[in-house]
Amino acid sequence: MYFCTKVLIYQSMNKNSISILLVVFATFIISFTGCKNSSSVNSEQNHSTEVSNPAYENIMTRTSVRSYTDKLISADTVEMLLRAGMAAPTARNSQPWHFVAITDRAKLDELAETNRHGRMLKEAPLAIAVCGNMDKALEGDGKDYWIQDCSAATENILLAVNALGLGAVWTGVHPIAERVESVSKVLNLPETIIPLCVIVIGYPNESPQPKNKWLPENVSYNIYE
Amino acid sequence: MYFCTKVLIYQSMNKNSISILLVVFATFIISFTGCKNSSSVNSEQNHSTEVSNPAYENIMTRTSVRSYTDKLISADTVEMLLRAGMAAPTARNSQPWHFVAITDRAKLDELAETNRHGRMLKEAPLAIAVCGNMDKALEGDGKDYWIQDCSAATENILLAVNALGLGAVWTGVHPIAERVESVSKVLNLPETIIPLCVIVIGYPNESPQPKNKWLPENVSYNIYE
Repeated sequence: MYFCTKVLIYQSMNKNSISILLVVFATFIISFTGCKNSSSVNSEQNHSTEVSNPAYENIMTRTSVRSYTDKLISADTVEMLLRAGMAAPTARNSQPWHFVAITDRAKLDELAETNRHGRMLKEAPLAIAVCGNMDKALEGDGKDYWIQDCSAATENILLAVNALGLGAVWTGVHPIAERVESVSKVLNLPETIIPLCVIVIGYPNESPQPKNKWLPENVSYNIYE
Repeated sequence: MYFCTKVLIYQSMNKNSISILLVVFATFIISFTGCKNSSSVNSEQNHSTEVSNPAYENIMTRTSVRSYTDKLISADTVEMLLRAGMAAPTARNSQPWHFVAITDRAKLDELAETNRHGRMLKEAPLAIAVCGNMDKALEGDGKDYWIQDCSAATENILLAVNALGLGAVWTGVHPIAERVESVSKVLNLPETIIPLCVIVIGYPNESPQPKNKWLPENVSYNIYE
């Protein structure tokens, strides 16, 4: 641009040249301002993307979804959910879990009968039973840490569900003895595999608002009060 | 721009005018091309952000961080972590939890003594004790669901930590009786508030790689085998 302007000055110092020069500068300034405006819009968009933090928002927007369309879930997506489950932390890295992914219609219908709150299983294309594996659980006073480990895995799956545009609900099994027994029977679980919960999953057919459960009185600072 | 060019043509049809006109157009085209390039880079960046799914990646990249810089964590960030905890699902929406956020140096040092694996508390600027509130826990055979609910809240906090560029590690307390007792003493917890775990949090001073814990043999399809 600097070079063009210099050439212009030497070649055309006639009567009209000053007004023409002004037009050239005006053209440049108008174009430059256009650029600047458009890039400031882009940088604002980028900025708002950074501020919005999709990973944090995914945690805050997860909510229980109990109605699903009849769209099936691909095997790749099922594996992504299972990988998310196994990305959870476990006490002393014991990984004391086993996952049963159920997509068979008859099995899903059978599972619906194991829990009086489980009727949504009748329309779900997928359920994942998150189980503790007693052969891998810790011994001694940490023997029940598998419950915490498998709960963290369950929450990971629920958040992956939300991240992938699916919907799900956690239905509790352990420690309610009759539910443990009936789920174990349907899935043919040996005694060493204890079902903690059944996650019911599908493409959402409802859009429930996430509950706002923030209560400042549930927090103390430094010491209980 | 169209108007400027028209004015130029009528006012200055002399010998140099054609070359000047070319310069004007060149200026405009150079500026316009610059604009176009910059916006296409931005749209590619946006596209790759959509494909990568930051919410899913946040789950897969979370790992335990046990060394922290001396940078303090703002009160706003602490509240974001607590809000993430309270966004977890709970059995029958009982929300049977209480959180103690510890930033006091002396308290953090005292907590370090409650767990032989807790030395990282000595350099951490923040700990959150996730506790069960027995006044809000379910009764009957679901009375222990608070453990699962508080574990899900803990995992939410760990994932929010990762989303916000912090690092953390989950240190187990309940059901190990001596740890429950010593943490309760430091935090002055009443008998109805049971510490499930202490999450130790800070800005990372190490970059451990997330463990790949995916094991296909941990999965059965439709029935255990």
